[in-house]
Amino acid sequence: MKRLVYITRKEHFNAAHKLFNPAWSKEDNEAVFGRCANENWHGHNFDLYVTIKGNPSEDTGFIMDLKKLRDVINEHVIEQLDHRNINMDVPWMSGKMASIENLAMGIWDQLVPHIHHGQLHCVKLWETHNNYVEYFGETLEE
Amino acid sequence: MKRLVYITRKEHFNAAHKLFNPAWSKEDNEAVFGRCANENWHGHNFDLYVTIKGNPSEDTGFIMDLKKLRDVINEHVIEQLDHRNINMDVPWMSGKMASIENLAMGIWDQLVPHIHHGQLHCVKLWETHNNYVEYFGETLEE
Amino acid sequence: MKRLVYITRKEHFNAAHKLFNPAWSKEDNEAVFGRCANENWHGHNFDLYVTIKGNPSEDTGFIMDLKKLRDVINEHVIEQLDHRNINMDVPWMSGKMASIENLAMGIWDQLVPHIHHGQLHCVKLWETHNNYVEYFGETLEE
Amino acid sequence: MKRLVYITRKEHFNAAHKLFNPAWSKEDNEAVFGRCANENWHGHNFDLYVTIKGNPSEDTGFIMDLKKLRDVINEHVIEQLDHRNINMDVPWMSGKMASIENLAMGIWDQLVPHIHHGQLHCVKLWETHNNYVEYFGETLEE
Amino acid sequence: MKRLVYITRKEHFNAAHKLFNPAWSKEDNEAVFGRCANENWHGHNFDLYVTIKGNPSEDTGFIMDLKKLRDVINEHVIEQLDHRNINMDVPWMSGKMASIENLAMGIWDQLVPHIHHGQLHCVKLWETHNNYVEYFGETLEE
Amino acid sequence: MKRLVYITRKEHFNAAHKLFNPAWSKEDNEAVFGRCANENWHGHNFDLYVTIKGNPSEDTGFIMDLKKLRDVINEHVIEQLDHRNINMDVPWMSGKMASIENLAMGIWDQLVPHIHHGQLHCVKLWETHNNYVEYFGETLEE
Repeated sequence: MKRLVYITRKEHFNAAHKLFNPAWSKEDNEAVFGRCANENWHGHNFDLYVTIKGNPSEDTGFIMDLKKLRDVINEHVIEQLDHRNINMDVPWMSGKMASIENLAMGIWDQLVPHIHHGQLHCVKLWETHNNYVEYFGETLEE
Repeated sequence: MKRLVYITRKEHFNAAHKLFNPAWSKEDNEAVFGRCANENWHGHNFDLYVTIKGNPSEDTGFIMDLKKLRDVINEHVIEQLDHRNINMDVPWMSGKMASIENLAMGIWDQLVPHIHHGQLHCVKLWETHNNYVEYFGETLEE
Repeated sequence: MKRLVYITRKEHFNAAHKLFNPAWSKEDNEAVFGRCANENWHGHNFDLYVTIKGNPSEDTGFIMDLKKLRDVINEHVIEQLDHRNINMDVPWMSGKMASIENLAMGIWDQLVPHIHHGQLHCVKLWETHNNYVEYFGETLEE
Repeated sequence: MKRLVYITRKEHFNAAHKLFNPAWSKEDNEAVFGRCANENWHGHNFDLYVTIKGNPSEDTGFIMDLKKLRDVINEHVIEQLDHRNINMDVPWMSGKMASIENLAMGIWDQLVPHIHHGQLHCVKLWETHNNYVEYFGETLEE
Repeated sequence: MKRLVYITRKEHFNAAHKLFNPAWSKEDNEAVFGRCANENWHGHNFDLYVTIKGNPSEDTGFIMDLKKLRDVINEHVIEQLDHRNINMDVPWMSGKMASIENLAMGIWDQLVPHIHHGQLHCVKLWETHNNYVEYFGETLEE
Repeated sequence: MKRLVYITRKEHFNAAHKLFNPAWSKEDNEAVFGRCANENWHGHNFDLYVTIKGNPSEDTGFIMDLKKLRDVINEHVIEQLDHRNINMDVPWMSGKMASIENLAMGIWDQLVPHIHHGQLHCVKLWETHNNYVEYFGETLEE
């Protein structure tokens, strides 16, 4: 019997962004996004939780070495987002709204090719004390 | 491909309650509920997390505007519970035990008619630092 | 050289209260205290931090055994406040407004006769995530 | 209609451990486990969340009395782990790597025979501010 | 005997900034400020704690009504910083380095004329999970 | 006018220790230290806050560059305590009781020779969720 366990690593980054749809007028952006549309940007301390699932190895007791998970998250996510402007400095967010929904899906896509032990289960991203987003790699049936 | 994402908004309220079954004697209430049966009430800072799931809009990057979710939670839940007595002041808790299990299901029922973008996924309610309840709208098969 | 060190123990309690001055009309109470004047009470999870200062013993490394400090706080404070109504159930708060300012000074007065190793330095009391009070035993010169 | 609700109780314990595979050389242990292989041990404040699911009783509003859940967790888990050495002092961890993955599964096995109201749903264990593990009783299909 | 008590209110704001001295070259800025000098900005969730000291009123139990303190902080600080760019959008930070040290002193200067009950005691500002600044209105003797 | 500001940096480490006075019998140690005397050790996640006070530079807005403060704390404190046994592995704790009071004073002594901008003001050390110690470099007059 192989048991399925979930392990989570937390990292964080600080970044600037704004919510602004360039196809809309300034007035429409302010009506929809309010203060988040401020043209001079605002920013957040983002807390990122990455969850891997799998069966722990008998030799190590690990699903995946958390030091390696930390290094993967840092190389492919934190290095690209920390002390950056999400709208301007991050190629894989270019042309998308800089919402945390889109950011969480983008982080998933960055990580998934680099998880070789266990399987990526969840990307959870806190933007403020009062809101967070989760993505589990699911799609909606149509 | 439409991706399914989960977004959560946190609110809080402060309220009084007691755990007391009026069909039982005072002694039985104290035997079962201990200090929670104190007839002069006690209270808590409740932390409420409401999770919506759905596919983010391309125009906004949002499943549902969190400002609107905040307003729905405030109008239909917080306004009715904050600085109230759950046993005495809340019509939709009347006649029920004021446990967090029942409170979480009651909050679900208050919210579900007002979620029009995405779908209500979870109501999570912290009562103290040491306990919380979650309701996902599930029923038990019999 | 004897060094002065400060040690803090955290405890918590859950209680009901209201802010209501019986010398005033209901309208005046609502005008000043707002929702906190709700006649049917509300409540909080209170976090209490008690700080003792003194010189650690060479034999134990302790200013005061924290297990004993915990027992003093529990006997003289928590036992009297936890799952109680601060206005109705606590003799040493009787006849005073149930504000956290008054509660912190009352807790100081409960503790100070029972601290025999080191000296009581601070009572800090959180009422919600957003406010706390501190009392250091100071008086204002007039 | 019986609704399915999830209730969680948090407890904590402080313990020492090391990650060290006795079948390997000291050098191999250090190469894989780094600082966690320190032969003189290190330790953590562990936060344990135990989740039970079930249908709340009409009489009490409870799935399971949280005071009883607390007592079960304390008797069968905390009493055996708190202020202990996980590698040396805990019979049911003997011969296994002292990883949090293995610890969470061990805690599950300790608890499951003692949950008689509702059903054990999840054991979640935080080891540091930056990592935690979850076990839901699942097995991998082969 | 009038007792001296300290009361603290927490608020928060989200803002963008950069640490960049315009009198220096880009290289010098990067050498001193590292990632914080990113020309496209970064940002934070700032937590602000404002402490007032004074003697509680017998009628209210309050040093100062916390609802009024909240309103003062919101009007004179949060409204001007939340979802703003500290370097570009805040007149009273103009021409100064946007460090949290300078920001805390600026917030003190904004608040002090508006505290009429009790006395402003401390402005404490968290920038990340790992650093905060405090200003008590003190000056260094020379 | 030079203003005096306080800046704090948080770091953390995980370590094992026991409270055991070798001049006493095992029974006396257990009577005084209880579970903390377990001969096979226990451990904690320690949170360390180091506060520096001084006047911010006009050029940088800094009292002391927090990156440098982080490096000083890591080189002289964290490197020596993290994933170690405080009783066995740390030369400057040798021959002292491994209490957090003694540990905080030891950390102060490690840091003070390396603070060249501003002045060391406080070492604050959390051992569990429920207790912490502070040392401000003060001595008791005799």
